[in-house]
Amino acid sequence: MHIDQATEAGLREQLATLYDQYDQLAARGLSLDLTRGKPSAAQLALSDSLDGILDGNYRAADGTDTRNYGGLDGLPEARALFGGVLGTTPEETLVGGSSSLTLMYQVMDFALREGLRGADSAWSNAGQVKFLCPVPGYDRHFSICEYLGIEMLPVRLLETGPDMDQVESLVAADPDIKGIWCVPRFSNPSGCVYSENTVERIARLPRLASGQFIVMWDNAYAVHQLYADAEPLACISEYARQFDTMDGIFQFGSTSKVTFAGAGVAFVGSSERNLSTFKAHLAFQTIGPDKVNQLRHVRFLQDADTLAAHMEQHAALLRPRFEAVLETLERELGGTGMGTWTRPRGGYFVSFDALPGLASEIVDLAAAVGVKLTPAGATFPCGRDPEDRNIRLSPSFPSLEDVQASVEVFALCVKIASVKQKLGR
Amino acid sequence: MHIDQATEAGLREQLATLYDQYDQLAARGLSLDLTRGKPSAAQLALSDSLDGILDGNYRAADGTDTRNYGGLDGLPEARALFGGVLGTTPEETLVGGSSSLTLMYQVMDFALREGLRGADSAWSNAGQVKFLCPVPGYDRHFSICEYLGIEMLPVRLLETGPDMDQVESLVAADPDIKGIWCVPRFSNPSGCVYSENTVERIARLPRLASGQFIVMWDNAYAVHQLYADAEPLACISEYARQFDTMDGIFQFGSTSKVTFAGAGVAFVGSSERNLSTFKAHLAFQTIGPDKVNQLRHVRFLQDADTLAAHMEQHAALLRPRFEAVLETLERELGGTGMGTWTRPRGGYFVSFDALPGLASEIVDLAAAVGVKLTPAGATFPCGRDPEDRNIRLSPSFPSLEDVQASVEVFALCVKIASVKQKLGR
Repeated sequence: MHIDQATEAGLREQLATLYDQYDQLAARGLSLDLTRGKPSAAQLALSDSLDGILDGNYRAADGTDTRNYGGLDGLPEARALFGGVLGTTPEETLVGGSSSLTLMYQVMDFALREGLRGADSAWSNAGQVKFLCPVPGYDRHFSICEYLGIEMLPVRLLETGPDMDQVESLVAADPDIKGIWCVPRFSNPSGCVYSENTVERIARLPRLASGQFIVMWDNAYAVHQLYADAEPLACISEYARQFDTMDGIFQFGSTSKVTFAGAGVAFVGSSERNLSTFKAHLAFQTIGPDKVNQLRHVRFLQDADTLAAHMEQHAALLRPRFEAVLETLERELGGTGMGTWTRPRGGYFVSFDALPGLASEIVDLAAAVGVKLTPAGATFPCGRDPEDRNIRLSPSFPSLEDVQASVEVFALCVKIASVKQKLGR
Repeated sequence: MHIDQATEAGLREQLATLYDQYDQLAARGLSLDLTRGKPSAAQLALSDSLDGILDGNYRAADGTDTRNYGGLDGLPEARALFGGVLGTTPEETLVGGSSSLTLMYQVMDFALREGLRGADSAWSNAGQVKFLCPVPGYDRHFSICEYLGIEMLPVRLLETGPDMDQVESLVAADPDIKGIWCVPRFSNPSGCVYSENTVERIARLPRLASGQFIVMWDNAYAVHQLYADAEPLACISEYARQFDTMDGIFQFGSTSKVTFAGAGVAFVGSSERNLSTFKAHLAFQTIGPDKVNQLRHVRFLQDADTLAAHMEQHAALLRPRFEAVLETLERELGGTGMGTWTRPRGGYFVSFDALPGLASEIVDLAAAVGVKLTPAGATFPCGRDPEDRNIRLSPSFPSLEDVQASVEVFALCVKIASVKQKLGR
C-alpha cells in the first residue's frame, strides 16, 4: 500500500511489525557490506591467467624490452587497445600505471598549478576555481576538488546525463567554471548512460567557456554492460573532432573492473597537444609506467572482441546480484511511495532515493543490525546531500545470498524510517 | 707522461697523433651509449621467473586478496621485507607502485604545498624554499626541485659524503633551507658511501634546523655492491631513533635495479606519524598500489639472504664492466693529470672529473664519433656544472665489448681536449 494512503492506526500497526522484524534481524548478528564497488573473487578469478601469461617473452611488438626503463607513453600496443575503448587514436592515448584516479588527480593538479598551456594558463592564476559536479556522483572525484581547493557546483543528473540546459547556462555565465566531472556510461551511482544529444552538447562545452575548460570524462564502465542490448555510449571523440574541442576533453579508463582491481592498467585519452604537455609534467615524477603489466594486459585482452567476451563473463556473475537487488526493492518497496531507484543495465551501482531527510537514518538503522551501506551523502560534494535522500547500493562484491539478505534489511530500514517520518515521530 | 711536463712541441705532436686516431674512429661509424644507469638484458633476465611465480595463489599471508582494491600501505610482508632494506619497521614502511621517484615527488609536493603537519607547516607559506644538493648528484632529484620552484644550494660531496661542516653551518644559518638530497650508498654518480660519522650528523640535522627540515634519503643502491667486502652503510634509522629525528627523515628505495627497471616495487620509510599524514595525501590520488606485483616480489625475493644472493648475480654481471672502465681509464689516463675519477665498489656509475672547462667539449667530441655520454652538467642543479668538469659514466647496460670501446673513445676525447687546452688552442 502507498504510504500516503495508510491511516495513522495502520501506520502504527505497521511500524510495530517492522520493529519486530528489525529486532529479529538484530539478534541474527549479521555482518554484511554493500559499501564499495569491488569485483567479487569469482570475477577476479576470470583474469588469473594474467600472472604467467608472458611465458618468458617480455618483448613488446616493436622489440621494446618491457623489463627496462622508459616509455612514458606506455606500450604502443596498449595504447592501441585502450585507445579503442575510449575512441582515441594511439597517439591520443597514454597508458600509465594501475590507477585512473591517479591520472585524473595528475591532470587536475597540472591544469590547476602548472597550466595546460604554460604558467599563464594555470587555473590558480584566476582566483576561485569552480567545477561542475553532476549529482549524485562519484565521491573520489569530489574529493580531488575538495583537496585542491576547487569549489564544486552541483548540477542535476537526469536519466540522459547532466541537465545540459543548466550546465550550458552556468558555463556561459561564469568564467571561473573550469570543467565538469562526467561518468558517461553507467554513471556512478545512477547507472544512467548519457544520451547522444548530451554527449554532443558536452563535446561542445569547451567552445562555450571563456577560458581553459576541460571535460573530465571518466569512462570507468565503458565496457561494463550487464546485458548485451544495454545502451551504447556515443563517442565523444567524434563530436570533439567535429567541434575541434579535443584539447578540452580528457577521457579516462582502467582495467580495474576488467582484470584486477588496483592492479590493472589505467589510461587517458586527449589531444596530442595535451598529452605532450601532460607528459612533460609526468616526467618530473616518474621514468615511466610498469610496461610489463601493460604487456600482460595486451596479451590477455588482445582485441575488442576478446575484451567483449571477457566482459560477458563478468556480466554473467554480476547480473543475478543486480536482479536480486531490483526484484527485492520492487517486491518490498514497489508502490509504497517510500523511495525510487534506478534500474541500471551496466556498471556497479543502484542509486536509491529515499524520502527527503531519511538517507542518514536508513544507513544508521542498517548499520545497527550489521549491514554496512555507503555513507549517506557520499555521492554529493563534501559528503553533503542537501536533501539527505540518496543511497548508493553496491551489490558486486558479496555473495548472491548476502546481497539478497542485505537488500531485505535495507528495505526494512527504508520502511521503518518512512513510516516513522509519516507519523511525525 | 703528465701533461704539465710535456713540451709544447711534444704536445703538438701528441695532438696530431690523437687526431689521427680520432679520424679513424669517426670512420668506424660507432653507435655506443654510456648515458643512463639501466640494467642490461642479462641482469633483467635474472628475474624472469617473476611472471608466473604466483602460480594461481594471489592471497597474501594475512589472507588479503591482492587482486582487489585497498591497502594504501602495501602488503604487510612487503613492508617487512623492504623495511628490512631501509632499516625501518614494517609500521615505518609504505610500499607503493613501481617508482621511487614518484614517492619522492609526492613527499616533496606534499611537504611544500600541503604541509607534513597541516596547512600551517607547508613550506610554501614561508617565501623562498631552499634545498641542499650535494654535487655531483642525481639529475632527477634536482629536476623535482626545479619544477617545484625550490632553490638549490650545491654543497660539496666528499669521499665520506656531503661536506658536513658546510651542511651544518648552512642549515643552522638559514631557516629557508628545508632539506637535503642524499644518495647515501654508492652515490649517484660518485659511488661514495657516506661514512658512519656523516650518517650520524645527517640524522641530527633536523634538530639543527629551525623549521620543518627533511632529509630525502634516496637509498637507491642499498644492496647494490659489486664486491662482497664493499663498505656497508650505517643505518640512519638507528641514529634517528637516538636523536628522535625520524619525523625529519624520509628513506626511499626500489627494486628497479633488483628485478625489473620501472616495473618493480618502490618503498618509503619514515616515522609512523609521517606515513600517516602522507597516506592521507595519497588517498586523494589512488585507492592503493599494485599489490599483485608486491606479492610477486615477496615470493621472489623472500628474505634478506635470498635478496643478497640475487644481488650477487647482478654483481657478477656488472663487475667486469666496471673493471673495464677503471682499467682503461688507468691505462690511458693514469698519471697524465688529465682527470680524476672514482673507483666505486657498488652502484651504477663512475664519476669523472676532467680539467676545468672541458666536460662539455669532451662529451661533444665523443658524440661526434658515435659515443653518447650523459650531458655535461647533468649532475648539477639546473644542468650547470660551474667548473664544467664532471662527466658521469654508466657502464651497466652495454655489452662488455661496447663498454670497452666506449671508454677508449672517451679517454681519447679527454686527451684531445686536455692537450688542446694546454696548448691554448
